[in-house]
Amino acid sequence: MKTGKIPKATITRLSFYYRQLELLEFDGYRMVSSEKLAWLCQVNPAQVRKDLGYFGEFGVRGVGYDVIDLQQEIKKILAVNRNWNMGIVGIGNLGSALLQHQNFPTRGFSFVAAFDSDENKIGKVLSSGLMIKDIRDLKETVKELNIEIGVITTPPSVAQGVADIFSEAQVNALLNFSPTQIHVPETCLVENIDFTIKLDILTYKLKNEI
Amino acid sequence: MKTGKIPKATITRLSFYYRQLELLEFDGYRMVSSEKLAWLCQVNPAQVRKDLGYFGEFGVRGVGYDVIDLQQEIKKILAVNRNWNMGIVGIGNLGSALLQHQNFPTRGFSFVAAFDSDENKIGKVLSSGLMIKDIRDLKETVKELNIEIGVITTPPSVAQGVADIFSEAQVNALLNFSPTQIHVPETCLVENIDFTIKLDILTYKLKNEI
Repeated sequence: MKTGKIPKATITRLSFYYRQLELLEFDGYRMVSSEKLAWLCQVNPAQVRKDLGYFGEFGVRGVGYDVIDLQQEIKKILAVNRNWNMGIVGIGNLGSALLQHQNFPTRGFSFVAAFDSDENKIGKVLSSGLMIKDIRDLKETVKELNIEIGVITTPPSVAQGVADIFSEAQVNALLNFSPTQIHVPETCLVENIDFTIKLDILTYKLKNEI
Repeated sequence: MKTGKIPKATITRLSFYYRQLELLEFDGYRMVSSEKLAWLCQVNPAQVRKDLGYFGEFGVRGVGYDVIDLQQEIKKILAVNRNWNMGIVGIGNLGSALLQHQNFPTRGFSFVAAFDSDENKIGKVLSSGLMIKDIRDLKETVKELNIEIGVITTPPSVAQGVADIFSEAQVNALLNFSPTQIHVPETCLVENIDFTIKLDILTYKLKNEI
């Protein structure tokens, strides 16, 4: 995987900044200082300025950032100012939950296809209107529907096989919910979601801060 | 919320280090250098040394860290060297998926109670063996089963109400999967899980690195 010059932590924080800016807009704010944005995101103001500084000059000294403009700028940076088509493999409880999760479409991430290998599931129409397809039709569906992001919600034992199929189908970005490490070619990107990392933060704080 | 002297990002990284150390152990490694650990976690070696340095002296200069010992130390720091009892509210698809997710018990996080407000669900026995309880029994169950962490998987519209109930029941650590901001007293800790932040990282990389 090629690594750019921008730290991954900066990209993650941009995501947080963007979400706080949405909330500020919702609450009627038009401008925000780097101090306030930093406080809301639990980082220091210098960090906010440094992170944004990688991409240009956005704020006005002594005035702060325009809440709506900065959202647009961050959306452009993160490439979420457009729609992305996603395919998901493994339609168990977690897969079904994600397909119904309102946060994805709101942010421009659309599930356009759902796959499974279970004969009892294939052909079933989900409440979203999608029909569960045979995993063997993945490659052809990726082309047909222009799927750019693959989501894996299978049991760990088959996650690697699914990653291989996505990768062969030229889907170069994978979001892996299966609690296992998957290996992909250098041209493919993987992000893992591990629910338990947030629990480690909670237990640390429970022990040390309360 | 009181904030300790240790940055939250350090705690998050300790979680990552720990997971990589597990994999190293699984692969048969007994020692690891800060360089290798840093590379595996996509941070720089100075960061690894700085993060661990907050808590003591763990490595041997020129030799590195003992893979098993460092895991134990990090588990102690994160307070995950013991079992934690969790209660979950909202037994839809996501709630059911989490209850079955093998990663939680493996890491010492046990769901000991599941709650819902839906009359059709209350009393149903889940595949894990837990019976879905009435949300109105939460306070009493928390005491009885010593629940220390609350997990919220309800629709956004009721998440705040559930957080209030947990908080009244003296559950001071909440893991919120509902895509909404919840407000809690200063003595309560909340971690939010937003699946779409990882997607922002993927789309950024797709645009800039491939």
